[in-house]
Order: sequence, then structure tokens, then C-alpha cells
Amino acid sequence: MADFPLKPGSTIGILGGGQLGRMMALAAARLGFRTVILADHEESCAAQVASQTIVGPYEDRFALKQLAGAADVVTYEFENVPAVAVKILAELGVPTAPSAHALAVAQDRVAEKTFLNTAGVATVDFEPIHSAAEIGPALDRLGAPALLKTRREGYDGKGQTWVDNHAEAAAALGRIGGKPAILEAAADFVRELSVIAARGRDGEVACYPLGENHHEGGILRRTSAPAKISASAAAQAETVAARILTALDYVGVMGVELFELADGRLLVNEIAPRVHNSGHWTLDGCEVDQFEQHIRAVAGWPLGPTTALARVEMTNLIGDEADHWKNLAGEQEARVWLYGKGAARPGRKMGHVNRLRPLD
Amino acid sequence: MADFPLKPGSTIGILGGGQLGRMMALAAARLGFRTVILADHEESCAAQVASQTIVGPYEDRFALKQLAGAADVVTYEFENVPAVAVKILAELGVPTAPSAHALAVAQDRVAEKTFLNTAGVATVDFEPIHSAAEIGPALDRLGAPALLKTRREGYDGKGQTWVDNHAEAAAALGRIGGKPAILEAAADFVRELSVIAARGRDGEVACYPLGENHHEGGILRRTSAPAKISASAAAQAETVAARILTALDYVGVMGVELFELADGRLLVNEIAPRVHNSGHWTLDGCEVDQFEQHIRAVAGWPLGPTTALARVEMTNLIGDEADHWKNLAGEQEARVWLYGKGAARPGRKMGHVNRLRPLD
Repeated sequence: MADFPLKPGSTIGILGGGQLGRMMALAAARLGFRTVILADHEESCAAQVASQTIVGPYEDRFALKQLAGAADVVTYEFENVPAVAVKILAELGVPTAPSAHALAVAQDRVAEKTFLNTAGVATVDFEPIHSAAEIGPALDRLGAPALLKTRREGYDGKGQTWVDNHAEAAAALGRIGGKPAILEAAADFVRELSVIAARGRDGEVACYPLGENHHEGGILRRTSAPAKISASAAAQAETVAARILTALDYVGVMGVELFELADGRLLVNEIAPRVHNSGHWTLDGCEVDQFEQHIRAVAGWPLGPTTALARVEMTNLIGDEADHWKNLAGEQEARVWLYGKGAARPGRKMGHVNRLRPLD
Repeated sequence: MADFPLKPGSTIGILGGGQLGRMMALAAARLGFRTVILADHEESCAAQVASQTIVGPYEDRFALKQLAGAADVVTYEFENVPAVAVKILAELGVPTAPSAHALAVAQDRVAEKTFLNTAGVATVDFEPIHSAAEIGPALDRLGAPALLKTRREGYDGKGQTWVDNHAEAAAALGRIGGKPAILEAAADFVRELSVIAARGRDGEVACYPLGENHHEGGILRRTSAPAKISASAAAQAETVAARILTALDYVGVMGVELFELADGRLLVNEIAPRVHNSGHWTLDGCEVDQFEQHIRAVAGWPLGPTTALARVEMTNLIGDEADHWKNLAGEQEARVWLYGKGAARPGRKMGHVNRLRPLD
């Protein structure tokens, strides 16, 4: 069994080979840790910086056994890790963080909102949809328009449809092929914010200043941080994050997406039990970024400071936008992060840029 | 042939597998580059984060051919690269930066000081020592005590002896086994400073604020940066750095070690044609650290900003000092960098810590 805090030279296992795993591996290396990645394809961008890479399906017992044998603790970079993978890792005796429970809660939108409300955290109103017969009454109760989503999977706006009446609702449900669904009431929000929060193995919670997020086509486009918010909004966000992380006995970094309503109240839109795209500004705006913070938590180290040292505008480089690297390289205040991915497919996150200016 | 600026996804080759290569590889990854390391042993700490590692002697033609085949440009992390390695790489058609010429100048203390003086840069007075017969007259001319060093190799104070009279001088020369030597006059300096300077492929030179260095037993112990210096000292250092880098048609980061005399004049002690231990403060004190700056230069990207965002005290963790990682991890203002090395031998640099406080 791992002995926390993990000593330098220990190995952090990471499920997933994307950019979040890549940036976790870079952070782990700074602290003297080795990394072993389990990726489901040969050319993963995290493998370029990991100490070791295992290639195999995430539910493959042999691959997971290799990972468990090589790692002192295992974390993940995406929330759609098959539950069976975490179960197998647990059976193999390797600690995972965040826990299987946190993952299960975040993987099911009904379980997530039910958990949040039970923990005293406000969300939009919602109805689970088990069958076509339920959707009409649910829409009547929540009011139109409402948002139909699959209960599981789907990110960056995938598998989500706004529905305005019974006919649209039935059609949208048909398109998702009878999968379990959730219907969510519309939130009359003025801004989308997020708080990147971390909880250590000692139960300490630390939050970064909030980011203000702008989406385009369901994909995060820009985050401005620290967001200009009232002291009461900041306090609300910290309370919300502490309730969520503590109720889950969470270990690691979590992205908590928030709707800010006109009256100043914050609703939680969703939680991501991992480092989060809207926290990439911390890479250049804070002493300890979200990736190091996550590694610290997972390794049982004390959390680091979360103060902002600069004002940052983070812009995702999506698809062929990364082809503008030459202009970005010449922009003095632009810190460029490129993920080492091959083909710039439309909608693919290829990198991001943090533009810095002094704090007011 | 490589086409500069190198596009993301290109591969940077690094001769040497130590901590400087490791931190270069981390910086290269941030910008979307792959790295290939040539290390002379299996367990190099840079290999833990490199995309690819080749293991072999630095002068091995087969290993160098693999490196040249895998890399778009090759740089190095230490200045004692065998000249033959750079020559072979050049024959193989892969560009190297810094150049073989810069390396040759820095590898020979007589060539180095002669070059510096010719470029209009002041150093201590010196005499090349080719034979035992020369050392007495040299000591008489330079005055005692004087410092006898081998012309080539030796770092962290190795191969250096203070000599006070003819007998000591002859004995010291005997101990270095008749190797070509240099006798240097003592500098009556009040402080040791260093400037980390970079020059891009376009000829632009950028300097970081100076660091003040404290050595113990010939090894760098601490750097405080930005050093508290007069505007004239800062201007002198920038002029000196620009002269050196421009005269060498240098590409990359160079560490320039300086003696500050009581009258405010700066003498150059030595130049290191590579990223430098006294520049590690930039990792947490600047937007673009010396490692990213070096990669930018080598890849033909524009140089980044060199402004300090914080005051930093960098302390090397030498030998078993890295065993105090648990205390360091808990220190809020201490950013810990550990190199992933195995055994903590006495005198071995195992990591460093940057302690931050706001700029005055």
C-alpha cells in the first residue's frame, strides 16, 4: 500500500492520454514524481512526456494490472472512465483519487444533481426521464424551453437539445435512442462562472479565484480570471465548493461550473471530478497551477497557494487555430501551450493561450 | 534541413540527461515540441520526461546518427560535450545551437578569456601555463594569491587551487598532472552576480534581471533575484552580455558569471553556453523561464519577456537535503523542484526550491 504523503520518486498513474494527462505529467515531474499513463491509443499526447506508457482499453484487466503494478496511486484525466476500471484497480489494491464514488456521482446527471441538492447546493430544477411517457409531464412541470440531455456521457454540448414543446421533446428523446435522460429547467443566468477547487487528503479545501467562461458551439472558448465578482458571490462559490468536496470526501482538483443569476445567486451547472479546461489560466496566473495542485492532493502533499498573480485571459485553440502558432509565439504577453496532438480536426482542442496583464 | 522557426510537433534533440535537460524537455513540451535525449546512462533523469531517449556515449557515431535522424535541431545541457560530437552532428546535417564555435570558446579557459577581452569585456588578468617553467614568472606578474585551474573541464570548483608562492604553484600544477592550465589573478570582488542572457536566431538579445550568487565549497548554494544593484551595474551587465552573445553569433541561453568589484565595475568570471543553475529562479519568478527561453531561441521563435514578477530566493538542494521534501512541501511560499534522481550522493544537485515574495 502507498504511504502518504508519497515521497519523490514515487509513480503517479494516470488513466487517459490527452492534454489534461499531459499537463498533469509535467506538473508531477516538477515535484520529482514519475508518471505512468494508460492510454487507449499509441499516439497519445501525454505519452510524449510520461515516464512510461501502457496502451490498452481502459477496461482491459491486463492493462490495468500493469498500471496498478507500476503506480503508487492512480488518478484520471477524464470523467468517463469506465466504472469497471476503477473497480478493478481497487481490487488490485492500488489507491485511486478521486474516488470511485465521486466518479459515479459525476457520471450520472441525475445522481449528480440529486447529490448536490442533498448537500445543500442549488441547481436548476430537473426531472429524470425513464420513458417517453414521462417527458410531456416533465416539460409541463419545468416549463419550456427545457434542456434534454443523456444522463450519462456527452460533453462539450454533445447529446444535448433544447426542447420547446411535447413534440420536440419526444423527437429529441427518440434521437438519443431511448437512453436514460434528464430534462433540465432553463436557468436565466447572466454569466457562466467556474471555480476550480481542490481538497487534500487531510480534508483541507482550497479554491482558486473564479473564472468567467464563454462558450461557443458548446465548447469552452475563453476564460477570464480572476472574474470580477462581488464578495458575496466569491463567498457563495467557496461555500458551494467546500460542501461538494467535503460531502464526497474528495481528493484532488474538481471543476465546478456555475450559473450566476440576475439576483446574484449561484447555481451549480455541473461538476467535473478532474482538472478542468476553465482552470488552465492558473498555469500562468498562479504560483501553483491546478495540475500541480491536483498532483499535490493525490500524492497526499499539502495544498499550495491559490492566489492569482496576474489577470489572465485563457483562449482555447480549437481545430486549425493552432496553425497561428507563429503569431502567438511573437505576442509578448501570450503564453502558448500546445498539446502535441497530430491532426487539427474541427472542434479538437489543440492548445490554449494565456494572455497576461497585471492585476488591477 | 530544419526550417526555422520550428513548427510545433518538431523534435528538439538534447545532448545530456541531467536536470537541465529535464527542465528543457518540460519547457519544450509546453510549446508542443517533442524531445529526444542522448544520455550516457540508462537511468537519466531527463529520460523520465523526454518523448524518446537514446542511450550511448556522447562521441558514439551510431548514437549521434540516431539523434540526428530523430531531431530537427540539437542543443546541449552541459558545456563539456565532446567537440567531436558536435562535429559529427554537423556532418550529419542537423543544426546545433549553441554553435560548435561557442562551445569551443567556453571549453578552454584561455580561449574564453582571450575571446572576452577581444570583445571588449573585462576579466581578471591571467596567464596560460604550458609548462612548469612558466608558472613562477606568471605568479610574479599576476601577484599572489592566484588561482590555478585546468584550461579545460572542471566545474563546481573542481580542479582549482589557490596558490600563494612558487612552491605551492609548482605543487598544484603537478597535481593536475601536467594538463594545460591557466593562472588567474585574484579578483577583489564584493559580490558574485550572474546574468542569464538569451539571443534568438534573429539576433535579438534579452537579459533577465541579475541574480546574486552565494557559493559554498565551490557549489552554487543560493541565488537571490532580482539582485539589488545600481542602474549602472544593470546597464554594464546588459552591455557585456550583448557583446558576448553577438560576438559569438550565439543562439540560446547563456549564463554569464560576474564579479562585482568595490568600485562598481563588473568582470566576467566565466560563461556557460547553456541554461544555468543561477537562472533557476526564473522558473517561478518570470512569465517565461530560462528553459522556455532557450527552447524558443533554439527553435527560432521570438524571445519571450524577461521581467521579474516576484522576488525569488533559489536554494539548491544538495545531497541529502532533498530528504527534507516533506517540510518543503508544506511551506506555502516554497516552490519545490525535484529532479527525479536516484541516490542522494554528497554534493549531488537533487533539486532546488524557489521561495517567492512580492517585488518591493
